[in-house]
Amino acid sequence: MARGTFTVAGGGPVGSLLAILLARHDYQVGLYEGRPDSRVTSVYQGKSINIAMSDRGWRSLERIGISSDARTDAIPMHHRAIHSINGDLSALPYGKEGDAIWSVSRGGINEQLLDIADSESNIETHFEHRLIDVDFKTAGAVFQLQGEREKSVAADYLFGADGAHSKVRRLAHSLPRFSYSQTYMPQCYIELNISANADGSHRLEKNALHIWPRKDFMLIALPNPDGTFTCTLFLNYSGDPSFESLQERSAVQTFFESNFRDAMDYLENPVEVFMEKTAAPLFLVQVFPWSFNRKVGLIGDAAHAIVPFYGQGMNCGFEDCAELNRLIEKHAHDWDAIFPAYENARKPNGDAIAELSKRNFVEMSDLSGDKRFQLRKKIEAKFHDAFPDLWTPLYAMVTFSPEVPYSEALRVGDEQNRIMDKIMQLPDIEHDWDKQHVMDQLFSLATETFGSGATQSTGCEKRSS
Amino acid sequence: MARGTFTVAGGGPVGSLLAILLARHDYQVGLYEGRPDSRVTSVYQGKSINIAMSDRGWRSLERIGISSDARTDAIPMHHRAIHSINGDLSALPYGKEGDAIWSVSRGGINEQLLDIADSESNIETHFEHRLIDVDFKTAGAVFQLQGEREKSVAADYLFGADGAHSKVRRLAHSLPRFSYSQTYMPQCYIELNISANADGSHRLEKNALHIWPRKDFMLIALPNPDGTFTCTLFLNYSGDPSFESLQERSAVQTFFESNFRDAMDYLENPVEVFMEKTAAPLFLVQVFPWSFNRKVGLIGDAAHAIVPFYGQGMNCGFEDCAELNRLIEKHAHDWDAIFPAYENARKPNGDAIAELSKRNFVEMSDLSGDKRFQLRKKIEAKFHDAFPDLWTPLYAMVTFSPEVPYSEALRVGDEQNRIMDKIMQLPDIEHDWDKQHVMDQLFSLATETFGSGATQSTGCEKRSS
Repeated sequence: MARGTFTVAGGGPVGSLLAILLARHDYQVGLYEGRPDSRVTSVYQGKSINIAMSDRGWRSLERIGISSDARTDAIPMHHRAIHSINGDLSALPYGKEGDAIWSVSRGGINEQLLDIADSESNIETHFEHRLIDVDFKTAGAVFQLQGEREKSVAADYLFGADGAHSKVRRLAHSLPRFSYSQTYMPQCYIELNISANADGSHRLEKNALHIWPRKDFMLIALPNPDGTFTCTLFLNYSGDPSFESLQERSAVQTFFESNFRDAMDYLENPVEVFMEKTAAPLFLVQVFPWSFNRKVGLIGDAAHAIVPFYGQGMNCGFEDCAELNRLIEKHAHDWDAIFPAYENARKPNGDAIAELSKRNFVEMSDLSGDKRFQLRKKIEAKFHDAFPDLWTPLYAMVTFSPEVPYSEALRVGDEQNRIMDKIMQLPDIEHDWDKQHVMDQLFSLATETFGSGATQSTGCEKRSS
Repeated sequence: MARGTFTVAGGGPVGSLLAILLARHDYQVGLYEGRPDSRVTSVYQGKSINIAMSDRGWRSLERIGISSDARTDAIPMHHRAIHSINGDLSALPYGKEGDAIWSVSRGGINEQLLDIADSESNIETHFEHRLIDVDFKTAGAVFQLQGEREKSVAADYLFGADGAHSKVRRLAHSLPRFSYSQTYMPQCYIELNISANADGSHRLEKNALHIWPRKDFMLIALPNPDGTFTCTLFLNYSGDPSFESLQERSAVQTFFESNFRDAMDYLENPVEVFMEKTAAPLFLVQVFPWSFNRKVGLIGDAAHAIVPFYGQGMNCGFEDCAELNRLIEKHAHDWDAIFPAYENARKPNGDAIAELSKRNFVEMSDLSGDKRFQLRKKIEAKFHDAFPDLWTPLYAMVTFSPEVPYSEALRVGDEQNRIMDKIMQLPDIEHDWDKQHVMDQLFSLATETFGSGATQSTGCEKRSS
């Protein structure tokens, strides 16, 4: 006998994971996805869409009791491979020796989670069921099937795990006191491809995230197991250069050749793809509340659509699931307590990673440009090596320190920024940066801000790994 | 021969003022309002709704060449009259001797502006025309009249001056790349009234804005020329106490008597009104862009609905009009230049006053509560008296310094806050606050931050008044 019934709208990675954790807590779950089953019909049209997974994602899977095969297929990226405009290549490590972020196939991890969901006896999976209505009082839902047929589904509770364009969230707009924000970034993007060598090996270094940082725009490439890379060009929507200004084929050709010279031998018809594809917008969505009448909740991108510049989208969605998993146990299945505890715990973290992701475009796209910015990172890294309990750089807190909530990482990062602003104003910092007096000054400012027991006050424990 | 034609949707104070300035620049203007003409049919139902006007509002009217009669009827409020819970009354001046904010009748100023609009030969005013559609490419509009009759109106350009619930703005949601944010505050409000004495005089001090600050909630009262006061009770939507928790008549009675003891003899049936009225929500709306296809624009609350805690709503809307007026001249009627210049100039200021207004609830509702906060204000005031070019308190920048843009006031105010945080950490500040070493320290921090030529760097010129 199930404890209760759930409708989960959205069969992506977060929806599938949510269905699994609910089923393992003895709920009867209906998992509904609007698109066809990618395991049967290739909805990905041969395209590899890959995303970055890091410690938060893996830890969340473990906490829900899933040892994903995804890790076997995932490609560790130990550093950023920076392609400068003159063709120079340099490596910027992501963290310490052994630290990596992982390139995983979105489709691959989704299908693995769906397979696990199918193996759970109390999950029923339904594809090609397009959500068209939700009753926020009863958690009832209406889906449209092929042939315009409609199906009403009753359940005790419903979760919208239906992504950045969430229908559940859009339907919630009509509810009283629903706060909502949708913000477009100046950049849009298109995806490009780099093919594999004839022997299936990678044409660029495999264990790296490749970046062609050009300040106002950038190209990035993530490796796939089949030897290809999936590339994304981020470029302004308007201005110069932009998707709007680059209309002529010859101008596009010149744009690629002058900016991505060393990639032109590998990219598959970049000029043609650029001319044909419509650039996709980048937007953030923030809402509150994340639950309605203690019956309906939002999770993953449906609750917090963010931009991809920190590689944290799926990590954050999986963390939502892990937190919910914890709260179901803590509140012993009392959903009147679980819903508010869940949204209060996760909302500040969703907001924080949204902010951090937005800011990170500048960091990524200007990586090789600003010498003072590089110097700043070098000073921070040296200080972190000397005092790992006192100072963990922001990127490492977000990516490799899942015990530090995003909101705490943002707060500590802002304090670190204020301190580093002062350090960078020291006279002759360019020459003196590794002198003892600079480290002394930094130590003094850091202990003043974070206290001498910094491990406690920053929440940034030394990682055990 | 008119230079071109405009549709202005919304005949409130901002829409009327906009129509006048456009007409005076030789445009033919159709001014459309959904409600009946308040000069003919009393849409205010005998209620006095008053709002605060301050220097920005008056200056904007002057710049558009309007010497409003509104100032004659306006009641200057020189200080906040703070009603403590035990009945003590204290006065907190708004600024220097002679500084005041003004209580004006919303209906009165609206009707005066409508009268001026009617006297302009190239404005046609239409009431009971409810906007139902806008063509953002052509600036065409469709209005619904009584009897469901629809009327299409063509024009070269259209402005949405249709307030916080703007239909023009809601229609713009369907446009690509429209960023939108709607945020509910925890507080809701109801309006209450204090009647006049039999001889038409005021029962409370006339030239003051009365505040009953109770930390999580507050009552305020603004004077009307007829001897009455219009009061607003701001109280949380949920929690304790809240509109949700106060359901029983006896609980409401106790709430009023224990919190607003000294007002109970004057308030007209507060308990009955509380029981009968539905509390209105407070929300902020922020959007971008404020113009579409160089054909359609947003102005006033339609572009930036804010909360009332800084008394700047209409001031900001009038400033939008004054800026547009300036840009029409600067760009010699080239609307391809005017629309982007207008939104780029005003958006940062709309965002800044939204943020400042949101923050000001705490300041208003805690005015008599926090002794350290009071001390902080006292130190700032003393320092301002000594160095008026170096330090103008935030409230005075926003309210009495129209030459300082809202965005600059917010930025400088944040810097001042950081400085005052340090001052308040000085040992024994409670006793030493007016000692020379405190002023010296403040002077040193202020000149370090704002430079010795602070008048320039802060934009805070000493007011000539």
